[in-house]
Amino acid sequence: MSSPVHADRLSRLRAELAARGLDGFIVPISDEHMSEYVGDYAQRMAWLTGFGGSAGTAAVLPEKAAVFVDGRYTVQVRDQVDGALFDYVGVPQSSVAEWLGANISAGQKIGYDPWLHAIDWARSLEAALAARGAELVAVDTNPLDAVWEDQPAPSKAVVTVYDTALAGQSAAEKRASIADWLRAEGLDTTVMTALDSVAWTFNLRGQDVTHTPVGLAFALLHADATADLFIAPEKVDDAVRAHLGNSVRIHDRTAFEPALAELAGKKVAVDPDRAVAAIFTALEGAGAAIARRRDPAVLPKAIKNPTELSGTRAAHIRDGVAVARFLKWMEEHAPQGGLDELGAAAQLKAFREESGALIDLSFDTISAAGPNGALPHYKVDETTNRAIEPGTLYLVDSGGQYCDGTTDITRTIPVGTPTAEMRRRFTQVLKGHIALATARFPTGTRGSQLDILARQYLWADGVDYAHGTGHGVGVYLAVHEGPQRIAKPSGGQAGTEEPLHAGMILSNEPGYYKAGHFGIRIENLVVVTPLRIDGAEEEMLGFETITFAPIARELIDGAMLSASEADWLDAYHAEVLAKLGGAMGAEDRAWLEAACAPIERSSAALAA
Amino acid sequence: MSSPVHADRLSRLRAELAARGLDGFIVPISDEHMSEYVGDYAQRMAWLTGFGGSAGTAAVLPEKAAVFVDGRYTVQVRDQVDGALFDYVGVPQSSVAEWLGANISAGQKIGYDPWLHAIDWARSLEAALAARGAELVAVDTNPLDAVWEDQPAPSKAVVTVYDTALAGQSAAEKRASIADWLRAEGLDTTVMTALDSVAWTFNLRGQDVTHTPVGLAFALLHADATADLFIAPEKVDDAVRAHLGNSVRIHDRTAFEPALAELAGKKVAVDPDRAVAAIFTALEGAGAAIARRRDPAVLPKAIKNPTELSGTRAAHIRDGVAVARFLKWMEEHAPQGGLDELGAAAQLKAFREESGALIDLSFDTISAAGPNGALPHYKVDETTNRAIEPGTLYLVDSGGQYCDGTTDITRTIPVGTPTAEMRRRFTQVLKGHIALATARFPTGTRGSQLDILARQYLWADGVDYAHGTGHGVGVYLAVHEGPQRIAKPSGGQAGTEEPLHAGMILSNEPGYYKAGHFGIRIENLVVVTPLRIDGAEEEMLGFETITFAPIARELIDGAMLSASEADWLDAYHAEVLAKLGGAMGAEDRAWLEAACAPIERSSAALAA
Repeated sequence: MSSPVHADRLSRLRAELAARGLDGFIVPISDEHMSEYVGDYAQRMAWLTGFGGSAGTAAVLPEKAAVFVDGRYTVQVRDQVDGALFDYVGVPQSSVAEWLGANISAGQKIGYDPWLHAIDWARSLEAALAARGAELVAVDTNPLDAVWEDQPAPSKAVVTVYDTALAGQSAAEKRASIADWLRAEGLDTTVMTALDSVAWTFNLRGQDVTHTPVGLAFALLHADATADLFIAPEKVDDAVRAHLGNSVRIHDRTAFEPALAELAGKKVAVDPDRAVAAIFTALEGAGAAIARRRDPAVLPKAIKNPTELSGTRAAHIRDGVAVARFLKWMEEHAPQGGLDELGAAAQLKAFREESGALIDLSFDTISAAGPNGALPHYKVDETTNRAIEPGTLYLVDSGGQYCDGTTDITRTIPVGTPTAEMRRRFTQVLKGHIALATARFPTGTRGSQLDILARQYLWADGVDYAHGTGHGVGVYLAVHEGPQRIAKPSGGQAGTEEPLHAGMILSNEPGYYKAGHFGIRIENLVVVTPLRIDGAEEEMLGFETITFAPIARELIDGAMLSASEADWLDAYHAEVLAKLGGAMGAEDRAWLEAACAPIERSSAALAA
Repeated sequence: MSSPVHADRLSRLRAELAARGLDGFIVPISDEHMSEYVGDYAQRMAWLTGFGGSAGTAAVLPEKAAVFVDGRYTVQVRDQVDGALFDYVGVPQSSVAEWLGANISAGQKIGYDPWLHAIDWARSLEAALAARGAELVAVDTNPLDAVWEDQPAPSKAVVTVYDTALAGQSAAEKRASIADWLRAEGLDTTVMTALDSVAWTFNLRGQDVTHTPVGLAFALLHADATADLFIAPEKVDDAVRAHLGNSVRIHDRTAFEPALAELAGKKVAVDPDRAVAAIFTALEGAGAAIARRRDPAVLPKAIKNPTELSGTRAAHIRDGVAVARFLKWMEEHAPQGGLDELGAAAQLKAFREESGALIDLSFDTISAAGPNGALPHYKVDETTNRAIEPGTLYLVDSGGQYCDGTTDITRTIPVGTPTAEMRRRFTQVLKGHIALATARFPTGTRGSQLDILARQYLWADGVDYAHGTGHGVGVYLAVHEGPQRIAKPSGGQAGTEEPLHAGMILSNEPGYYKAGHFGIRIENLVVVTPLRIDGAEEEMLGFETITFAPIARELIDGAMLSASEADWLDAYHAEVLAKLGGAMGAEDRAWLEAACAPIERSSAALAA
């Protein structure tokens, strides 16, 4: 595709760079908080290139430019980005550094915005450019913003108080814990930049990032348990001021960088995975002593307290009722044809809204018919919207934000009669799901060790799925939350070597994708739970499944299940019925009873 | 225990240190090759402290001294080392650096022998001492050697040619491959110090390390495919000279350090995990450019060629006959009482020797009766020798060195009637062993991902084993060989993140240990093998089991096995009978047939 709009934008950016004496510039999808999802004002790569994915980078030189995307976006980038303007470069096979190395000459100056990149990324690229005689230059203001006339302003939405009755711990207690940690480490202050860490620590919620209830803010937390919160003044009302109290000094967001300069002589904890390069250089410039430490909110936020867990359980039952009603609706309407992905997603949202408690979806619903289901990160829009046809599988991955919890569930629905191949793969995915759901493991076990449990039955057939098995989930916060993760250790994403702790919430979502044909995924959320086992010699952990909705029995080949797998499935469905049935009308409940009936077993399973 | 001998040695070492102006000295169990097992001449820690384990360190200060050992040796160190002379320090909870930090004062000089430590260890300790105002000093000659009057000389045993018919690849071809790699990396030379790498690369075998057929030598390999071999002249005869040919220049071992000094201006690959600190400082002093690279022999040595694999398979059948005859002998003699650990080990060795092909054991036999079996690294001697009594388990972990392969096998034998607990644990260990033996996994999978397969059934009961599941094994080389390893990623030993490649040999050895009561381990060796699976979408690997000897049926609770596990066991035993039976006499064969009979199955397993 040819895109005159983007040709114009690229040429204006090049003119701006030339005016500033720069030979190139790097455009990531990132914000000042290194968020996974960024606000509209920070969608610079999309504006420049037309790329609509959630991960990627662009690099611009006087005569060449390139977009760097991973394997998920190989096809999409070709649809959305003009190949005459930008080279398509696959990562991690290649990299920004490698492409620049091949295309720059000695003496050139390449700019980057230090508020959008990690310090280690900048240092590594700086060294790579220096090896070619070129220079990496931190810009004071973003040159792309200078040519983006209608750049949206950052959201001005207010933040609201997250009640201690839901949070389970007051913001003052959280600050006191962080202060204890700072003193134990011999440090004065920690810089907090991750938006969900700030929201969790101060018991605030916001509306600045789609589907993630966080507000744009930075914080400094001190060893005396006071804090400085940097947030646009229009976001803070009297209720929030009263909630924060005297120990939290409120400043405009623009005061954050100057405040860093005032930390001269202080020992300051900074998280190199979450704080941008500009924060490091500001602190270094001020003469602060930087201690690289993980953001101290990350682990306690991941380890949910009993209040958060009981809220999340309630949210999941509420959400499960909506999903179960949708599954019934699909069963009644899909086989006749006439449904499409957008319509199905809208109907599911409508059922969630009928709970009266839905605040937002927790992410854009993946509503994927037939071959679209084989794209694990598929996002439906008007141009891709596909009819849901008989003889196919429909995959729906969705979740809701409720005041007491965040949900994330995937179900795969047969439209009409599934093929034997679909049933075999679905049953293998289910066996892996059950193996993980029922795993028992000693404390200290990491997600990378458990991952194979979910894959083993697919691997027996020589097939696999190209995504992780489980990610952390927040409580009325981010649907993707660290630090824990269940995945292959070679996956490149952090978290697989993080020991699992009781109270962590994770997804359990093995799948299988047959390109051009169908996709399968079964996703429930689980809570890491201490186990009491008679005679145990180790401190053991396991999982409590907290997502409740029927798993399509028509897709299960009962003969492939062991007796204990069939037992798990029947017990799970019995619990689905017990938890959801009471909140459903008679007709819905009758459907649910049938959907939750025991599975037909193989003779071997019956004998056991 | 009080030890006047060691008090005297310690005081003479302190006098020597004082004469040299040193305030302290570090004594590791190591040699110039950073070998796992070291020759008698390098057993400095044993001489100084009396400690007989294979891993540990001592540190000596003017008024204090300490021994540092891991959890395996907590009990043993107290039996063998005089607590009045040496503090007992557990690692990794504490460390040499931490203990020195607490016990030295500013201005002190602590010595270390740079031929016995890794460069990164030295740099890290140097920084830790500098933080206390103290200095780490590399000694020119080892001060302990100066006071060890009867220190054995390094072995003078000759090296012998390892025939290409056994090696599967000529030494010239191996040098050419390494030269190709050097040129591809833009390097001139690689330093090779690991004794098994030198033996493998030059197709030589030696007799300088107990149970590992390697000779003491260093090598430099060059990008032109020539090499310099540094080895004591008395070790090299005309046959070896002829085998090495003109492209390998032979030097005295003492010429190695001067040769490093001649690499000025060269780009030299050095393996920081295998080359000692002195090599780095010599190269740095000479002005060579050091490139940290893994020893280029490590991976090709681990990935066995077809000749090595077929030799190893033959060695395992030969070894299996000896083990099977021993199992029969034990069954006939043990229940009456009167056997002990030393006697059983001697009998097993005698059966191996009757093959006429045994060159050496591959390690000291672990012959462990009753509670001694609960010590995974138990080594029997006259003082610990225990009677093999009815009602106990006897665990024997042993192996042989044959010209065509190295074996390593563990069997657990019931003496009389085992308890229900013993049978439950043995069956759980067996289920884990089978799960690993039958694993299928895509290329790129690492040992850390597979480890849980072997542990899952023990974990279900809340029990575990405190060692790895699988180590690499050489071909008529080291019984512990890198780089691959199947273990928890948190185990601290390298290798769990190494992708498994077809041709690698690994052990499969889950176990269970009940302290003070009994130990269980089932160990076979396996070869990583490409799998052809109909319809597979990934390149898949699996394991071929190459160790053949019966697994005690009396210890198996057939009701705990699934149908496919029972199938595996029966098929394995049928293969044991088929492979070993032909080489056994009629009486032995009759016993083997009974030992290999199908297992009694549960009704569920029968129905499947």
